[in-house]
Amino acid sequence: MKAALIIIGNEILSGRTKDKNLTYLAEWLNEIGIQLYEVRVIRDDEQEIIECVNLLKNKYDYVFTTGGIGPTHDDITTASIAKAFNVELETNTTALAILKSYYKEGELNEARLKMTLLPQGAELVENPVTKAPGFKMDNVFVMAGIPSIMQGMLEGARKFLQTGSKMASRSRDIFMPESHVANELSKLQDSYPDVEIGSYPFNKDGRFGTSLVMRSIDSNKLDLCSQDLELMLKKLT
Amino acid sequence: MKAALIIIGNEILSGRTKDKNLTYLAEWLNEIGIQLYEVRVIRDDEQEIIECVNLLKNKYDYVFTTGGIGPTHDDITTASIAKAFNVELETNTTALAILKSYYKEGELNEARLKMTLLPQGAELVENPVTKAPGFKMDNVFVMAGIPSIMQGMLEGARKFLQTGSKMASRSRDIFMPESHVANELSKLQDSYPDVEIGSYPFNKDGRFGTSLVMRSIDSNKLDLCSQDLELMLKKLT
Repeated sequence: MKAALIIIGNEILSGRTKDKNLTYLAEWLNEIGIQLYEVRVIRDDEQEIIECVNLLKNKYDYVFTTGGIGPTHDDITTASIAKAFNVELETNTTALAILKSYYKEGELNEARLKMTLLPQGAELVENPVTKAPGFKMDNVFVMAGIPSIMQGMLEGARKFLQTGSKMASRSRDIFMPESHVANELSKLQDSYPDVEIGSYPFNKDGRFGTSLVMRSIDSNKLDLCSQDLELMLKKLT
Repeated sequence: MKAALIIIGNEILSGRTKDKNLTYLAEWLNEIGIQLYEVRVIRDDEQEIIECVNLLKNKYDYVFTTGGIGPTHDDITTASIAKAFNVELETNTTALAILKSYYKEGELNEARLKMTLLPQGAELVENPVTKAPGFKMDNVFVMAGIPSIMQGMLEGARKFLQTGSKMASRSRDIFMPESHVANELSKLQDSYPDVEIGSYPFNKDGRFGTSLVMRSIDSNKLDLCSQDLELMLKKLT
């Protein structure tokens, strides 16, 4: 099972806001056996959103979007998604009922009512934090950009998701430059085509080294690969 | 002037490594009048890299890539870029000379020599940190993923970049929910089409509010917009 994430928001691209949803989503999805395969960060631009959603929903099992579903003029994701699916926006009566019971008399102003205008056919994705729901159209999940709300919505999205095989991983830190293990590591990768072996240099409090990371959905192969890695490292030292 | 960033690396998509280059690049580019318009995070996959580079180099003035130019088997960016440009890899004699003078006798092993194999026609982008250079092909800048090295390379890339108009910004925090200002803010946006007005809810130590951010390359319009915002806020309170 493969997924893509579309992060929508000029504030991410300007550097003003640091995205925290990518890492969270990647780890959350992996726990239920879905791999994040691609991420795009795009502007609050209707045409960009439409093209990006239409392309990725056909390429991956699931697409998640974050950002742009609030009450202000710069929140254009919901309307853009409706256009991507060639449907109109309409007041979602369930969303309206949720907000009516959440807000006090008079608090449900025009701006907040905008958040009940969803694409025809949208299924609600519950928002335990601030109530205004996210939604799902086919395999596309439209969520808020604020991390706490996005994380809450993910729990609401879970019931719609088919789960796959979980990617397990092993990590081994060595205090050698990666060039010292490069050749042997390449041979190890050739022996284990079902294990994805990555090599990542690090600097931990001034000590330089390399993290060797093995990932696979086959935990037996991962164990064997891990054992062979240890043998390899013994020979090298 | 518009730019795109391609973040290449399975370790970002798995959630293992948090990207720190997006925000840094966005702010660095803005200082010299280039706006980051799009970011893609893709896997260490030759075909994905080729397609992504070829698409974005035609769409934007500049494309920056991070990741995958090290000495190990999983570093496939350089070879993929060569394929994207339909050229062969060859030993870059300048890169070779740099590494020869940096490493002691015997330290310049096969893995490190791999980092001197660059696409034909590549121009070097200096690496003040670990010496193995990044490079430029047309409008595509290929840089390391490690933030300190990437940041050093950016300084080396600067001489190749035409600068544009800097985007200035003003930010105003209010302790009201964004729905309370949404209508008036939308009118303000209509009055200032050259100013990009964004509204971002925040929670600062338990106090909820909204950051109103105005961005424009025209600082006079920004000043006027900022004054009108203050008038608007006075009326609302």
